[in-house]
Amino acid sequence: MLLPDLRQQVLEANLQLVREGLVKLTWGNVSGIDRDAGLFVIKPSGVPYADLRVEHLVVLDLDGQVVEGSLNPSSDTPTHRILYREFLSIGGITHTHSVHATMFSQAGRELPCLGTTHADHFHGTVPVVRELTPAEVAADYETHTGHAIVETFRERGLNPVEMPACLQRFHAPFTWGKDALDSVKNAIALEVCCQMALGTWQLDPSQSLLPPHLLEKHYLRKHGPGAYYGQKAPA
Amino acid sequence: MLLPDLRQQVLEANLQLVREGLVKLTWGNVSGIDRDAGLFVIKPSGVPYADLRVEHLVVLDLDGQVVEGSLNPSSDTPTHRILYREFLSIGGITHTHSVHATMFSQAGRELPCLGTTHADHFHGTVPVVRELTPAEVAADYETHTGHAIVETFRERGLNPVEMPACLQRFHAPFTWGKDALDSVKNAIALEVCCQMALGTWQLDPSQSLLPPHLLEKHYLRKHGPGAYYGQKAPA
Amino acid sequence: MLLPDLRQQVLEANLQLVREGLVKLTWGNVSGIDRDAGLFVIKPSGVPYADLRVEHLVVLDLDGQVVEGSLNPSSDTPTHRILYREFLSIGGITHTHSVHATMFSQAGRELPCLGTTHADHFHGTVPVVRELTPAEVAADYETHTGHAIVETFRERGLNPVEMPACLQRFHAPFTWGKDALDSVKNAIALEVCCQMALGTWQLDPSQSLLPPHLLEKHYLRKHGPGAYYGQKAPA
Amino acid sequence: MLLPDLRQQVLEANLQLVREGLVKLTWGNVSGIDRDAGLFVIKPSGVPYADLRVEHLVVLDLDGQVVEGSLNPSSDTPTHRILYREFLSIGGITHTHSVHATMFSQAGRELPCLGTTHADHFHGTVPVVRELTPAEVAADYETHTGHAIVETFRERGLNPVEMPACLQRFHAPFTWGKDALDSVKNAIALEVCCQMALGTWQLDPSQSLLPPHLLEKHYLRKHGPGAYYGQKAPA
Repeated sequence: MLLPDLRQQVLEANLQLVREGLVKLTWGNVSGIDRDAGLFVIKPSGVPYADLRVEHLVVLDLDGQVVEGSLNPSSDTPTHRILYREFLSIGGITHTHSVHATMFSQAGRELPCLGTTHADHFHGTVPVVRELTPAEVAADYETHTGHAIVETFRERGLNPVEMPACLQRFHAPFTWGKDALDSVKNAIALEVCCQMALGTWQLDPSQSLLPPHLLEKHYLRKHGPGAYYGQKAPA
Repeated sequence: MLLPDLRQQVLEANLQLVREGLVKLTWGNVSGIDRDAGLFVIKPSGVPYADLRVEHLVVLDLDGQVVEGSLNPSSDTPTHRILYREFLSIGGITHTHSVHATMFSQAGRELPCLGTTHADHFHGTVPVVRELTPAEVAADYETHTGHAIVETFRERGLNPVEMPACLQRFHAPFTWGKDALDSVKNAIALEVCCQMALGTWQLDPSQSLLPPHLLEKHYLRKHGPGAYYGQKAPA
Repeated sequence: MLLPDLRQQVLEANLQLVREGLVKLTWGNVSGIDRDAGLFVIKPSGVPYADLRVEHLVVLDLDGQVVEGSLNPSSDTPTHRILYREFLSIGGITHTHSVHATMFSQAGRELPCLGTTHADHFHGTVPVVRELTPAEVAADYETHTGHAIVETFRERGLNPVEMPACLQRFHAPFTWGKDALDSVKNAIALEVCCQMALGTWQLDPSQSLLPPHLLEKHYLRKHGPGAYYGQKAPA
Repeated sequence: MLLPDLRQQVLEANLQLVREGLVKLTWGNVSGIDRDAGLFVIKPSGVPYADLRVEHLVVLDLDGQVVEGSLNPSSDTPTHRILYREFLSIGGITHTHSVHATMFSQAGRELPCLGTTHADHFHGTVPVVRELTPAEVAADYETHTGHAIVETFRERGLNPVEMPACLQRFHAPFTWGKDALDSVKNAIALEVCCQMALGTWQLDPSQSLLPPHLLEKHYLRKHGPGAYYGQKAPA
């Protein structure tokens, strides 16, 4: 079996989505990539999480060809593929319909940074990606979803490492990270930040942004060159 | 014991309601039908889920006669019976008082399609079924509930296969599907879509509908003739 | 040990509060009464639920004297005592600070009947009981809480069997029932109905009441002389 | 290993945060102090709760020097240190990003006392602590966070024993107590009171405060010299 360690991490990442309450039924998928091999591993389509085993995962190359696996890969696989091809520094991708992030996607509302929980994970406003046109939907829907995300990041000059999330208009969130588990972390953070923003605006509809000096501080103490949150990686 | 496999699925479907947080106390029931035998299996009335066993389930024919079982069937049994008689293509029915769908029922508010989560399960707006008249309540309440649902679908030209859900005014949701477990899936999807709609409107009260090309795409990629979501059924 | 069966039920009822998510920390208590013995059993004050054992429960008579038990009874014991003395047909009492019912208590907002979930348990509007005066608080706070509840029911001509709940102003709900477990059922129903009402009004602030013919039907099919919900009690 | 009992309590307190749903990922930390030894024990930074063991905890003195432990202490350690130095009567501190309390922090909204649940734990309005200035953030962010909290309590004449909580503007809550577990209790109470306040204001935006005689009664029956809630401590 190819990539046993990556398969194990991708399985664990998919199951974590369920434990964290981010998915109902089969509404979510996580993938992870081995950049050296040029292969990524993704959840099969529509398989209940309770039945999911390492050997059910599907291995594909970056042209979208299945390299190993007898089940259909997630129907969102073309979106993952485009993101891996275009965002070269990412190692894992998560897609969920988590409740609060999906509310923002449905409303077409960006998630501005209202506090340090947000700044700990996302360097600024989480963007909304436009809905696809009828032509894009007709031709190759999931591939065009990936292109629309990339287009949004290019147009706004966003760095996918600093902004590992987006809200697909009328659909739901995509997040990514340095590997599969890291992309799930960002999915959890995005869901909670959306929930907190909704309540913050109930308390004060005119609530303004986290001041820039606090945004920078929180983002950089976790992610900057002098980051001091967490433990040093072994040398 | 009649229909042991169907009993097992109906038991599992009822217990899934509890695990998914869709019922409190005994506020819910699932049934499944064997179309060849012309018999359906349903939860007994008011039995706590923790005590529920396969042998407690009640088997009835489509005239409402108990064929097997010593306990009273769910008080909502006549509603299930009418739906099985009138909606010939359905194989399972779920009734819950799940919190967010019940809010919509109480408010008499239809659930329009605001995003792809909805479109993955429901082909358009989930309808509200009118409240029963005093005469209907006095005569045979639960049977008339079934007739009112059927009347709504006829008047609006709705296909119960494409729209496997309704919101009973002042009461709560009913969902159905190709079998008992499928009707529970639709109950879960309905509850989450109601919760998402409530939050979407908090973010933007004027939120408009999912554009038709996206509604069709998402519904058809799961349910249309060329559906490519999930795994192929074995030939 | 006195009343071992009643102790067992009261313990189980207290633990059910935790499992159902109605209490945090030690914010809740359930009692049950043996009318023949004229004794009631209640949770001790401030003991964590995880440590609670049958022998920790406290037995009191209706004059408030501890008959058996070495721990202090719940600080709300005088309220329970007054309710048992004045509402002769009840057999169990539950007090919680469940989140949504407490919101209604804090807002001083009655809970009208907006749907059948409510009508299945409460025959009409759940009343708010006025806050206590400084003199009542100074003299014997918890006893006066009981008297204020009784006063509300007398003034409004409410039957505590048909309306097994109230919302104590600025405080939280009290519910009761035919025994300890039944009072917990009503606490669960009250919490869910408050949550549903809050969402119903978000969808439609002018939402009107459940029509009387539906209220009567649902209440009576569970509680009236010809009730047909649930199973017949063994003769 | 130093302070084994304190380590055990601090571990248990950190795990309780997870069980109670107050933290996601690694967004929270609890510490406890041994006043005689002048040492406090705190969670290491960024270690997942599932992996946390007694020996991972870090022991520091009140100058912020690590006395025992090979992992980095929580990045919020300097805030804990200042609070222990300035609030001499406290024995434990909890920091979380619990959802509802963080909404209040982000909105910069104080939590007034709206009911007895609040009065049972907090003697009055829970204050908001101002955001830090750019200079404070640049120099020693977490230490200045501690100083800003102390400044708020001094300026308002608040007693940290009677008001064991604050809402750090744009960030999240800090609570404290007589020991680590007691600080977690106050974190739970604060989260629930924020959730209840949000719903209370949805029901009635003009909701006024708990009358002073009820605030005093509830606070004092648990915390005053004649407190009668809970069990007497053994002599």
